[in-house]
Amino acid sequence: MTARTAADRVTDHPDADDITLQGVLEALADPVRRSIVRQIAHAPGDMACGTFDISVTRSTGTHHFRVLRQSGVIRQYYAGTSKMNTLRRDDLDLVCPGLLAAVVEAADREAVRAGGARR
Amino acid sequence: MTARTAADRVTDHPDADDITLQGVLEALADPVRRSIVRQIAHAPGDMACGTFDISVTRSTGTHHFRVLRQSGVIRQYYAGTSKMNTLRRDDLDLVCPGLLAAVVEAADREAVRAGGARR
Repeated sequence: MTARTAADRVTDHPDADDITLQGVLEALADPVRRSIVRQIAHAPGDMACGTFDISVTRSTGTHHFRVLRQSGVIRQYYAGTSKMNTLRRDDLDLVCPGLLAAVVEAADREAVRAGGARR
Repeated sequence: MTARTAADRVTDHPDADDITLQGVLEALADPVRRSIVRQIAHAPGDMACGTFDISVTRSTGTHHFRVLRQSGVIRQYYAGTSKMNTLRRDDLDLVCPGLLAAVVEAADREAVRAGGARR
């Protein structure tokens, strides 16, 4: 029996080949999840779960991160005790080239029209 | 009292300013609706409702066309007794530049991987 490593703790990522357009669109068709994606897209690096500006309960937030992870939109990994989040840009660009960038850009435009908020 | 024209019969299209990313993503996050969009995208011209290759009942098809119309993805108009469908490419490119093209391209790729069917 081997010791569990930190990587073992976040295991249910789809392989790139198993990412589907259907799953990605369902993941992005939610305003909270788009906000999470935008925040990572505009961050200087990967983001820890506790650092997002989202107006939902912790359990609802956990659900949204899980949908993003299981659809292949984000990759989660541990850095010490922090669960970090990064966009799977390269994998998504194999399945749906340009889609992530188009959604982030459109969401940015809507945020500007709504009053300039970054989320 | 004025006579009703053919144009009056399909009235509930959003103005371009009222098209939202949320509505567009919800509309496209359904495989039947994506199939409809792809068929129009690849057709040489606008398509009459009765000419689509979709494997749902007539009433379900009507629902899907309504969602596409009310989200601003398609415009419907009458030509004689035929209800015609066209993509609102220019209006969509104001709200979410590149999104429609990215979704159609990704759906094309999936169709090719699934066996080359056009839908």
